[in-house]
Amino acid sequence: MGRVIVVAGAAVVGVLLSFARGGDPVGEPHAAAQTSAFSAVERYRETAERIVKSTLEGNTSWRKLEELCDDIGHRLSGSTNLAKAVEWAVETMKRDGHENVRAERVMVPRWVRGRESATMTVPREETLHILGLGGSVGTPAEGITAPGLSVRDEAELEVLGERARGKIVLFDNSMPQYTVEHGTHYGTTVRFRGRGAVLAAKQGAVACLVRSVTARSLRSPHTGAMRYSNDVAKIPAAAVSTEDAAMISRLQARGIPVVVNLKMEAQTLEDAPSANVVGELRGRERPEEIVVISGHLDSWDVGQGAHDDAGGCVQAMEAISVLRRLNLVPRRTIRVVLWTNEENGLAGAKQYIKDHADELPNHVAAIESDGGSFRPDGYSLECHDKQKEAAALEQMRQIVKLLAPLGEMKAELGGSGADIGAMKPAGVVLMGHSVESAIYFDYHHSFADTLDKVDPTELSQNVAVMATVAYVLADMPERVGERTSP
Amino acid sequence: MGRVIVVAGAAVVGVLLSFARGGDPVGEPHAAAQTSAFSAVERYRETAERIVKSTLEGNTSWRKLEELCDDIGHRLSGSTNLAKAVEWAVETMKRDGHENVRAERVMVPRWVRGRESATMTVPREETLHILGLGGSVGTPAEGITAPGLSVRDEAELEVLGERARGKIVLFDNSMPQYTVEHGTHYGTTVRFRGRGAVLAAKQGAVACLVRSVTARSLRSPHTGAMRYSNDVAKIPAAAVSTEDAAMISRLQARGIPVVVNLKMEAQTLEDAPSANVVGELRGRERPEEIVVISGHLDSWDVGQGAHDDAGGCVQAMEAISVLRRLNLVPRRTIRVVLWTNEENGLAGAKQYIKDHADELPNHVAAIESDGGSFRPDGYSLECHDKQKEAAALEQMRQIVKLLAPLGEMKAELGGSGADIGAMKPAGVVLMGHSVESAIYFDYHHSFADTLDKVDPTELSQNVAVMATVAYVLADMPERVGERTSP
Repeated sequence: MGRVIVVAGAAVVGVLLSFARGGDPVGEPHAAAQTSAFSAVERYRETAERIVKSTLEGNTSWRKLEELCDDIGHRLSGSTNLAKAVEWAVETMKRDGHENVRAERVMVPRWVRGRESATMTVPREETLHILGLGGSVGTPAEGITAPGLSVRDEAELEVLGERARGKIVLFDNSMPQYTVEHGTHYGTTVRFRGRGAVLAAKQGAVACLVRSVTARSLRSPHTGAMRYSNDVAKIPAAAVSTEDAAMISRLQARGIPVVVNLKMEAQTLEDAPSANVVGELRGRERPEEIVVISGHLDSWDVGQGAHDDAGGCVQAMEAISVLRRLNLVPRRTIRVVLWTNEENGLAGAKQYIKDHADELPNHVAAIESDGGSFRPDGYSLECHDKQKEAAALEQMRQIVKLLAPLGEMKAELGGSGADIGAMKPAGVVLMGHSVESAIYFDYHHSFADTLDKVDPTELSQNVAVMATVAYVLADMPERVGERTSP
Repeated sequence: MGRVIVVAGAAVVGVLLSFARGGDPVGEPHAAAQTSAFSAVERYRETAERIVKSTLEGNTSWRKLEELCDDIGHRLSGSTNLAKAVEWAVETMKRDGHENVRAERVMVPRWVRGRESATMTVPREETLHILGLGGSVGTPAEGITAPGLSVRDEAELEVLGERARGKIVLFDNSMPQYTVEHGTHYGTTVRFRGRGAVLAAKQGAVACLVRSVTARSLRSPHTGAMRYSNDVAKIPAAAVSTEDAAMISRLQARGIPVVVNLKMEAQTLEDAPSANVVGELRGRERPEEIVVISGHLDSWDVGQGAHDDAGGCVQAMEAISVLRRLNLVPRRTIRVVLWTNEENGLAGAKQYIKDHADELPNHVAAIESDGGSFRPDGYSLECHDKQKEAAALEQMRQIVKLLAPLGEMKAELGGSGADIGAMKPAGVVLMGHSVESAIYFDYHHSFADTLDKVDPTELSQNVAVMATVAYVLADMPERVGERTSP
């Protein structure tokens, strides 16, 4: 195996160089690699065209998404809705004729929101639009009433130090306005949601508010997960709309004291049973080798979790249904996994690598779609084994060319998915199914993540992309990231 | 007067023809009109530059808007907040040194929302995001629970006829997606908000839901005024978010029955005292001749009424403050009027024309800014007297050229403003202060109409435009719409 990888690595470097030069490959290894890559593309061109054409002509992805979003609704870990979604997914995959359909039990955290409200009481009464953060503790029944203190970030809080004691600290850190080109800067802003309560509690704050992580708002709060640290007090934490955060900061800037009352019934109950849902298109030749395609079935407890991540689940489910309807049974097994508890614990992902430890070496690749169901634009890819990663990248750059009828698709190095990340140490090639996500964070974790935000045609395009890529990865003679020697 | 207007009318036709030909004017009347118009522009160019420069260099419009939005908040007719806003406006205009500052008493309707909620109870429990419509009656305490029936419009409701009896009828008429070019199609969609309850009650419906009038939503309901008819039952009416409307329609399209519980405490109390706030920059030569500049001080009871219409009020207030600071006292009086009760009754406008009936013939022009405080783009204009209207249009086409440093400005025929509309029969030249309003209806009448949606620079540009135009209209030798004969 090691020798093969070394050969592949060398070949890849050659291909990359030839691409960089823009000229034809010269010399033995280059030519061999090119031939191998291009022949793969040639070999699957007709099949890919069939998959794409058939998917776009008609599929049941929209119906599936309607059932999941409209008939079931949002699906927080431990909720009745998530249990219904597990049942629905099992039934639906069985009805579609898939193999080894099953719910694999997972115990998940059970955080419940209860009623919640926030009111600015000074200088005047104004309802603040909030969503408690997942994992937060609640407040006493009468709420917590304290002066508000708005800070931009950790540094400003640090400077204020003791002045934060007894206050409700607001992290008013705005997400930069995005453009399609510049992405959403989610990563740089979300840190206050995750650890704001810890930072504030360290300074003696009694509660924590966080400006919603979004660049665009219509007074729409965005929830998400938060964490506590054992060495500081656990204080309640909620997201406020960008509008409310801005108002508090403006009042403070004019020297006008602000007092806020925060009421939250939030609590964490005993862990609850849930499940990852699994179904397969069993491979014809090497069924023990597995390509995972996946999304997460759970969502936050607001909106319908349509883009996050009903769409990802439906893409994976429908992908193997399309292949099955076309009688396209690949060499290896394509396994759909619908993860539970992505949003607040990753219990599904952790359980999967325990239950499937023996199988992990035979996990050829794992794909997760968790960026919404907007127009697909390719794949990001990562692998613990850097040589394998480079080889897989080069193969993916060829494979995505099969999707040219659906527009330009990228294959690049980058993060893959929160759930499949658990397989990284096992050396599995991990891929994030990527979409044009410029407006994703307008909806993400909010009441507005609803079915109407998904375009049925774009959903079908995602199905076509995922079906094609999964088929090729499962069918090509070599495992992705490895090559047959020239 | 009649003769002058006739001459002006002939001159205008000549000017329009010469513009259409793109050539130089020929013949006596043309040349005279051209000279008059162009000399007016030349005469005010330097003054206009001073006004614009000074306004953009610094003014207190943003501070005023902060005080009105953040310190007072939304301002529904009959509310304590509106009373505070009246006080604030009087004090602020006095502080700015204006003349004849006063609150002119107006009795206004007092509709109060109370608590309200809507829940889809079948096929599953889901909170619907609603805002009761202004003027609606309430429901019994336990609410009204009935099957939902979604229709697109009057025609579809008519066809269903008896099937609407006992139902909660939803008008799910979507607002076309807008572009900057195509405008917002508000007029074609808003009719269901206004008379949906009457249409539904005629068919025996027990309540009425209306898809929010907006092209873009983040689960954000938009309220507004509705009307009853004396010949049909008064049923409660509320706006639902576009997302909720779409969900109900999708379920219905799949044959899945929907049941909704609607609870509203809404009621109309006794009329309450309020006021139009007036302040003047008194004219130096013909103070009895008046140019009104205006916005409306009341708002709906959600958000901060920032674009609708705190911004319009502030533009007018600041416009005369800018002129006063520059010692620019025009020939005629510029009168700021901040209307009360624009949103649900126009009581302020009606009272004004009663109280000022004697003065109306001396109202040379009236401007209202009620389209938000986005980038200004000129004026629309209307006058009951069509010859005067044509002459005024031609003069305004010249006047807006003075604003070239702020970008291209239009002057065109079109609606002006709801409040100043009451002066139309008196033959006053009415003008709507126009802005780039493509996204106005994202915020309009919703929780999202907040200060952060206003750009301070654009607000200042509006002040500069309004100050310049008001100054020229109040100072030019001829009354707008009339001309000195050649």
